[in-house]
Amino acid sequence: MTAPNRATLWGRTLVDELVASGVTAACISPGSRSTPLTVAFADHPDVGTYSVLDERSAAFFALGRGRRTGEATALVCTSGTAAANYHPAVVEADQSRVPLLVLTADRPAELSDSGANQTVDQTKLYGDAVRWYRELPEPAPDARRLRSLRVAADRAVAKTTGANPGPVHLNVPVAKPLEPVERPGDVPDSLAETAPLGSDGRDGPFVRTAGGTLTPDERAIDDVAAAADAAERGLIVAGPLNPGVCDPDAIDALLDATGWPLLADPLSGLRYGPLAEDHLVCGGYDSYLDAEGWPDPDLVVRVGASPTSKALRRFLRDADARQVVVDPAGDWPEAEFTATDYVEADPSAVASAFAERLGDRADARVGSGEWRDRFERAEAVHWNTVESGADERFFEGAVLAEVVAQAPDPATVFVSNSMPVRDCDRFGRPRPADLTVLGNRGASGIDGITSSALGAGSATDDPLVLVTGDLAYYHDMNGLLSVARCGVDATVVLINNDGGGIFHLLPIESFDPPFTDQFKTPHGLDFEPTGDLYGLEFRRVEDAEGFAEAYRDSLASDGTQVIEVRVDGEASHRVRETLHERVCERIASDS
Amino acid sequence: MTAPNRATLWGRTLVDELVASGVTAACISPGSRSTPLTVAFADHPDVGTYSVLDERSAAFFALGRGRRTGEATALVCTSGTAAANYHPAVVEADQSRVPLLVLTADRPAELSDSGANQTVDQTKLYGDAVRWYRELPEPAPDARRLRSLRVAADRAVAKTTGANPGPVHLNVPVAKPLEPVERPGDVPDSLAETAPLGSDGRDGPFVRTAGGTLTPDERAIDDVAAAADAAERGLIVAGPLNPGVCDPDAIDALLDATGWPLLADPLSGLRYGPLAEDHLVCGGYDSYLDAEGWPDPDLVVRVGASPTSKALRRFLRDADARQVVVDPAGDWPEAEFTATDYVEADPSAVASAFAERLGDRADARVGSGEWRDRFERAEAVHWNTVESGADERFFEGAVLAEVVAQAPDPATVFVSNSMPVRDCDRFGRPRPADLTVLGNRGASGIDGITSSALGAGSATDDPLVLVTGDLAYYHDMNGLLSVARCGVDATVVLINNDGGGIFHLLPIESFDPPFTDQFKTPHGLDFEPTGDLYGLEFRRVEDAEGFAEAYRDSLASDGTQVIEVRVDGEASHRVRETLHERVCERIASDS
Repeated sequence: MTAPNRATLWGRTLVDELVASGVTAACISPGSRSTPLTVAFADHPDVGTYSVLDERSAAFFALGRGRRTGEATALVCTSGTAAANYHPAVVEADQSRVPLLVLTADRPAELSDSGANQTVDQTKLYGDAVRWYRELPEPAPDARRLRSLRVAADRAVAKTTGANPGPVHLNVPVAKPLEPVERPGDVPDSLAETAPLGSDGRDGPFVRTAGGTLTPDERAIDDVAAAADAAERGLIVAGPLNPGVCDPDAIDALLDATGWPLLADPLSGLRYGPLAEDHLVCGGYDSYLDAEGWPDPDLVVRVGASPTSKALRRFLRDADARQVVVDPAGDWPEAEFTATDYVEADPSAVASAFAERLGDRADARVGSGEWRDRFERAEAVHWNTVESGADERFFEGAVLAEVVAQAPDPATVFVSNSMPVRDCDRFGRPRPADLTVLGNRGASGIDGITSSALGAGSATDDPLVLVTGDLAYYHDMNGLLSVARCGVDATVVLINNDGGGIFHLLPIESFDPPFTDQFKTPHGLDFEPTGDLYGLEFRRVEDAEGFAEAYRDSLASDGTQVIEVRVDGEASHRVRETLHERVCERIASDS
Repeated sequence: MTAPNRATLWGRTLVDELVASGVTAACISPGSRSTPLTVAFADHPDVGTYSVLDERSAAFFALGRGRRTGEATALVCTSGTAAANYHPAVVEADQSRVPLLVLTADRPAELSDSGANQTVDQTKLYGDAVRWYRELPEPAPDARRLRSLRVAADRAVAKTTGANPGPVHLNVPVAKPLEPVERPGDVPDSLAETAPLGSDGRDGPFVRTAGGTLTPDERAIDDVAAAADAAERGLIVAGPLNPGVCDPDAIDALLDATGWPLLADPLSGLRYGPLAEDHLVCGGYDSYLDAEGWPDPDLVVRVGASPTSKALRRFLRDADARQVVVDPAGDWPEAEFTATDYVEADPSAVASAFAERLGDRADARVGSGEWRDRFERAEAVHWNTVESGADERFFEGAVLAEVVAQAPDPATVFVSNSMPVRDCDRFGRPRPADLTVLGNRGASGIDGITSSALGAGSATDDPLVLVTGDLAYYHDMNGLLSVARCGVDATVVLINNDGGGIFHLLPIESFDPPFTDQFKTPHGLDFEPTGDLYGLEFRRVEDAEGFAEAYRDSLASDGTQVIEVRVDGEASHRVRETLHERVCERIASDS
């Protein structure tokens, strides 16, 4: 490695090692202090760079990419508030276990607390939200220091993508000159001889890191298998899981062995795909689990994060059941605190081991019979009711139903928090199609949704569909710049009910004021100019036919289209209630 | 205080006490967990509420208001990433000593680390960037707990507005019900009897807080005064100071007593106002201090933060001078580390004491003669050169010159970081008008500028002028929603050079690639649709006459106008260089 000065050497070495360790993309926001990093990323032939001007959007873009791929995406920003703008995405990455490799440039130590420009305390800026924080030493053409830099880079990638993936923060102080200007003597010509390892690294990563898999305790599997043999009403519940975290084949084997229904969150990666063809994959539970007369399950195996569906969470809370929570990284993903067993192990490994154990016993025909039939019937009632509800007023749920039903195979579908993910949960029918449905359900914010979707879309050639609400669309409007600057095409379904429709679900609805001004907060924004601003096709629809047509057209087109669906949030909520009541009544009368 | 349930009681008590302690405004973002706070603020007759949908913009709005007024402005948000969105403004408030009272709603403690929705670790979320962090206890109708709540509220206001103003963070966990729904028995009817103090507070604040003023050590004043007697080339340098922090009358007395030039940063609060009429208030130093032949000062008294002008900072760095830094809160605001004396005391108190000491000696005619004349001449050369530079190509500096020269009296002028504040520094001529010129120079980010300006504008009836660049305008485009929602009118001068013009000042300019793609980052955005989006009048100008007319028209109109000034960033930089060379040549030949 040669370099005209030590800052450039440092940037090149760090980036060289990150790329050797598997980093393929960096999301860079313009700034001066970060020049050595930016220049090194821009110069490196084996890494893609995305230039994102707003650091908050940049971080969510990288988050989306990391969520879709499971790979570390680097973030680069200058010192100061720029780094603080990453905080929301860092929090989401922490909560939802997404790799995110944050590189914040910093002033050299002597400028701390001196009033120097853009100099703030970046030490542990994200607190406990990162898996690892390191303050890198200042650049120096020193053999050990360069080796330590390469080890730090490899460790950072390993930690952000490890058994408990999440954000890693390297704070990178650098002194001027920051640009690749020649500074004779700053990096000795003899560096390759005096510091060969640090300077040039190794063929491949400097440290080859092999991550382990947390295999389940055998006795725990025996124990649950014994319970399963005795169980009459077993259930598998899959909450949100990032792509690649849980192997559908392992769940397939488990479903084969048990015959139990799988209640699959739309973000579980298990609702859409081959399981939906061969097994009882349920997606309507949010609508029917609170119907009268449902018996309790007696054994529940839970994988993934806490399910989106409140009805499901309550059903599990109130069940007199043995409830086994599986988590690969020691977190407790169950906020009703009724689980009885906790298995800290890889969910695929648990599912495989469990399936294998059950498979050994020919008499293990658990899950057949009445319990399974009940779910089968409930699913039929739910989807028939929803799909024959076309005589109802057009509502938000119908949009999600259509989005999912007509999504291309394969596709990436990103759903915003607040109502879209809930409507996807209730109205997005399981399909044996390769749909990667994603959402930011770690902290469930409405910030950064557009950028997260575009980041996810940037990682594959799959068509990208984003379903967002007007508040989320507004919140990350800046993220739309990445359509052009990062070259991502999308179909953006903007469900515009002029304010916070979700608040209609809450008791505050009956206190007005302040309901309208402070909660629903209608903004009256006409989003059509965002089409002109960001060079997007903008189309407005107000009914089911209009939406279906616009959606079909967009999927058949290149470029990015925003389909604004104008709906009445309150009326949509009433339709949800009506359908819910109808489903519950039919199920109750059925049982 | 009565309340239908304990969460409502808690919100009402907290807000009641904050208002009693002087909080007059709250900036609220919609959310569910924060319902008890939002409802209490909305219900309180003596507090103004601003509803801002994007929490990042909300925090900057509150920051701007706090900067303008020196008063605590409350921020209210829900739990989760919402709170992380405040971080950039919290960092700026910390660095620039602006009161900011952050109230983040939180889930009750039992939901920590449980995967519950929108539940993240908010403990010390902003690290060391706050003056005070407190996790409030959970609501309870308990006498001591309610008293502790009132004391915490009063202490929070006192700390955020104290001798070292800055952000304060109260984390507020609350359990359901969050809405003011009746929950019989939750708050006993006898509360007013069992917990009268906590429940009802006192007439006025529960704790009357009297803040002290840090008066200077007498010996230090004696010592500096003795040095001043012996000094031949004394200088007063005022860096950025928030309104109200340094009393212009005290500086007036000091200038009377010394006759020294005052080099007044545009953000010092001393460049514009009566001092400019009676004293030698210099504003052109950025242009002439690096001219050849300038003698060193021998005594410098510095108040405020580090000056915006790099030429001034270098001049002071290279001066063989006694340099007295005055800071009221123990920070070291001088990143060249050449200061010789540090006086930790209130700057007005120092100036007054110093003036009084000097005034006692009739022979203290320091500062007259050649040294002062030199500054007088340099100012004349600078302003003549700049103002007769009209034959030069229209450039960014001319916009700032016009903005300042034609600003109404009084007015609030907010200048963005990056180039506008630097151009204001060099081209914004001192005027004896009541211009409150503000900028976010703590961390000097380009984020949140529009919101900060609108927040500042919301606090007075003065006309508001914002001068921003295209990157800053883009970064906080969401902030424009506050024009309508918060009812603030402004003249927005948008200097659009399509990217980061400031990078032309840096050596990276000569490395392309990656200069254009990663640093200058031209975005090609046509901002005209932002007029439609936010209901603003949008006008585009490209020359001096066009700008002058549009500016005049806007100042004479109601509503908010965006005047987009299309300029060439690189050419502007060349004009700056030309003018600078011309000034330096004239001054050198003059001396």
